Amino acid sequence: MSSLPFAARLDQVHTSAIREIFKLLARPGIISFAGGFPDPALFDVEGIREATGQALGDASAGAVLQYGATEGWGPLRQAVATHMAGKGISVQPDGLITTTGSQQALDLIGKTMINPGDKVIVEGPTFLATIQCFKLYGADLVSAPIDADGVRVDELEKLIIQHKPKLVYLIPSFGNPSGAMLTLERRKKIVQLAAQHQVLIVEDDPYGELYFGSPPPPSIMALANDVPEAKPWLAYCGSFSKVLSPGIRVGWMIAPPELLAKATMCKQFSDAHTSNLSQAIAANYLQLKDGNQTRLDKTLAVVRSTYAQRAQTMAQCLQRELGNALTYTQPQGGMFFWTRLTGQPTPGSNTATSQDATAYAKRAPDHGIAFVPGAPFFAVNPDTATLRLSYATSDLGKIEEGVGRLAKALPV
Amino acid sequence: MSSLPFAARLDQVHTSAIREIFKLLARPGIISFAGGFPDPALFDVEGIREATGQALGDASAGAVLQYGATEGWGPLRQAVATHMAGKGISVQPDGLITTTGSQQALDLIGKTMINPGDKVIVEGPTFLATIQCFKLYGADLVSAPIDADGVRVDELEKLIIQHKPKLVYLIPSFGNPSGAMLTLERRKKIVQLAAQHQVLIVEDDPYGELYFGSPPPPSIMALANDVPEAKPWLAYCGSFSKVLSPGIRVGWMIAPPELLAKATMCKQFSDAHTSNLSQAIAANYLQLKDGNQTRLDKTLAVVRSTYAQRAQTMAQCLQRELGNALTYTQPQGGMFFWTRLTGQPTPGSNTATSQDATAYAKRAPDHGIAFVPGAPFFAVNPDTATLRLSYATSDLGKIEEGVGRLAKALPV
Repeated sequence: MSSLPFAARLDQVHTSAIREIFKLLARPGIISFAGGFPDPALFDVEGIREATGQALGDASAGAVLQYGATEGWGPLRQAVATHMAGKGISVQPDGLITTTGSQQALDLIGKTMINPGDKVIVEGPTFLATIQCFKLYGADLVSAPIDADGVRVDELEKLIIQHKPKLVYLIPSFGNPSGAMLTLERRKKIVQLAAQHQVLIVEDDPYGELYFGSPPPPSIMALANDVPEAKPWLAYCGSFSKVLSPGIRVGWMIAPPELLAKATMCKQFSDAHTSNLSQAIAANYLQLKDGNQTRLDKTLAVVRSTYAQRAQTMAQCLQRELGNALTYTQPQGGMFFWTRLTGQPTPGSNTATSQDATAYAKRAPDHGIAFVPGAPFFAVNPDTATLRLSYATSDLGKIEEGVGRLAKALPV
Repeated sequence: MSSLPFAARLDQVHTSAIREIFKLLARPGIISFAGGFPDPALFDVEGIREATGQALGDASAGAVLQYGATEGWGPLRQAVATHMAGKGISVQPDGLITTTGSQQALDLIGKTMINPGDKVIVEGPTFLATIQCFKLYGADLVSAPIDADGVRVDELEKLIIQHKPKLVYLIPSFGNPSGAMLTLERRKKIVQLAAQHQVLIVEDDPYGELYFGSPPPPSIMALANDVPEAKPWLAYCGSFSKVLSPGIRVGWMIAPPELLAKATMCKQFSDAHTSNLSQAIAANYLQLKDGNQTRLDKTLAVVRSTYAQRAQTMAQCLQRELGNALTYTQPQGGMFFWTRLTGQPTPGSNTATSQDATAYAKRAPDHGIAFVPGAPFFAVNPDTATLRLSYATSDLGKIEEGVGRLAKALPV
């Protein structure tokens, strides 16, 4: 029997090693540092219930349950514009569209911009689902090197000149998986690069709110307030998934008018519009107050301090249990330690350790611990000694126990 | 200044005349037969509130608000499988995925199946957003002729042999815009065509529940129970949008395992998953009872009788006000009259009328009435004398008044 004649674009993308690891997470007793999930115990369920009750109240239920505008639910576009103003980004409600999670914003950018064979620059490493999403549109990905201060702008400029890419995709604040924070100076340079080389810069910002100490520098888009010739070349993707709820799937995209119009047309034929109910819940939630502050700010304060404490505990445990066998930069926010196996012995041992993080990740579940190897996060030239550890969903006891298991699983 | 270098696939699709008409609907006092929307007054808001309360109850809120599986919310996949069994389709929960409205199912089929230049057969006329969605993936659309009994299977077979299409897309029950009902005999023939020519048949069924008298014949997929060699070539798209609520965006797709796996991978990079909250609401709603019957059945009974009455009233008004100037087949379900201008005078007049439905649709809003011309619903060779009238959202008084305005707007 013949089989279905699938489209050639699927040949670009394969099921990742990471997906195989996720299947193991259901094993009883396993501790997971693998996911990129927020801690559901920190969701403001009560606030979301209140926002939902408003959305399905007599005044708005009819409109919420009916078809809506592809561009987004009016009150949410207004609320996001106000929210963005608080971050220094000046945008009108019709200067943004809402999306079904910020993943859809990436898909719409791919669909509107990328021809098969087009060069697209991403950070090495970068968000795995961006790599796959852009590859499905035929992108030929180029990897720009990063350090703890984010993408190296000197190298990025060379790559832009060399490859004339369709777009550059960056996660400037607490990148996934790198955890890196792009410095103010480098952000300003990127604004200049956009204007000078007339190249679209896509700034993905799901983690910017999750800072432990000082907030991140202004976003690339905010910095373009002083550089009007850069503005036609900048897009920004935001998300409610890391604080409010990923399950309701609401994100947004700010982009130049022409790109926004094309993305809206593509969205019309992708899912018509994002769930009005989800959008109305987000819009209503942004208005909720708790005393002098918003509920969002109150929730954010709890999330930040909880994740900060977990990151600190994980650092202490990694130092104690793995010592020189593992290097990393201490994250100042976000959800991840991005680490590298050195081959050095663990503390109290003389045995050299493996630098094969993929093999390490495969055997770790047998020791009751799961994490993801770093290689799949590289579009090209994977660093196979890297791995990503998330502290977001484990309490302090599990972090202690989990890092202990990590150390036991390391020697081969 | 240069402008953004958009992808070539966008050149396949243009903003439709219909979108321009929709912008006029906000005019005060206008009566609209234009939309494909269900009547929000018939939504079971109380039932949806109850289902939402359950979804955000302590037992499930954490999971609902967290990231979910790309394949769908487990209880919904189970509930849809049970729902489908009631329609004669035997499917396990893992034999279907949930989608962000059935529009996304179409997008996933396009993404997984269509290479640029691939032939795809659709009905002439067919759902406008399917035409646009498939064109964005580069489909070269072929139009199969229809009559009141649905697609003409003899012609369809010739076209399959001639074009060797990647897939055939059909709306067998109360097609949009045609309102046509594919006969049992023709459905059986299509099952044979799938097996014989090894061609993927995509059956889109958003309207099948909206029957006024007898239910439609079994779906193409249900008829394949007796023809196992056809099963690997059949996909089915379902939707909660026409009865429960379009605003929450929940649909589903049943397909052969390999297609389902590829579509799931594509969905992962399109929107990660459909809103868990929307899915949980749909799953819970399907369990709600009202006495002996389900709330869904109770709601469906009201929707069917309301739309049936509106369709009958519209027929009477069209006959009285437009007479021989307009031909149509009386719909037995669904939301639409598919009509054709004959050029004959309206009753009591001797003046010949226009057969240009596009010009008619453009001037109609000046007479306080809106509808959509039929031409955009044809992938090729548009019949410019056709137009679509929806009775779903207008009460009987508005239908009377609106058809009167239609008659006044017709002569040029």
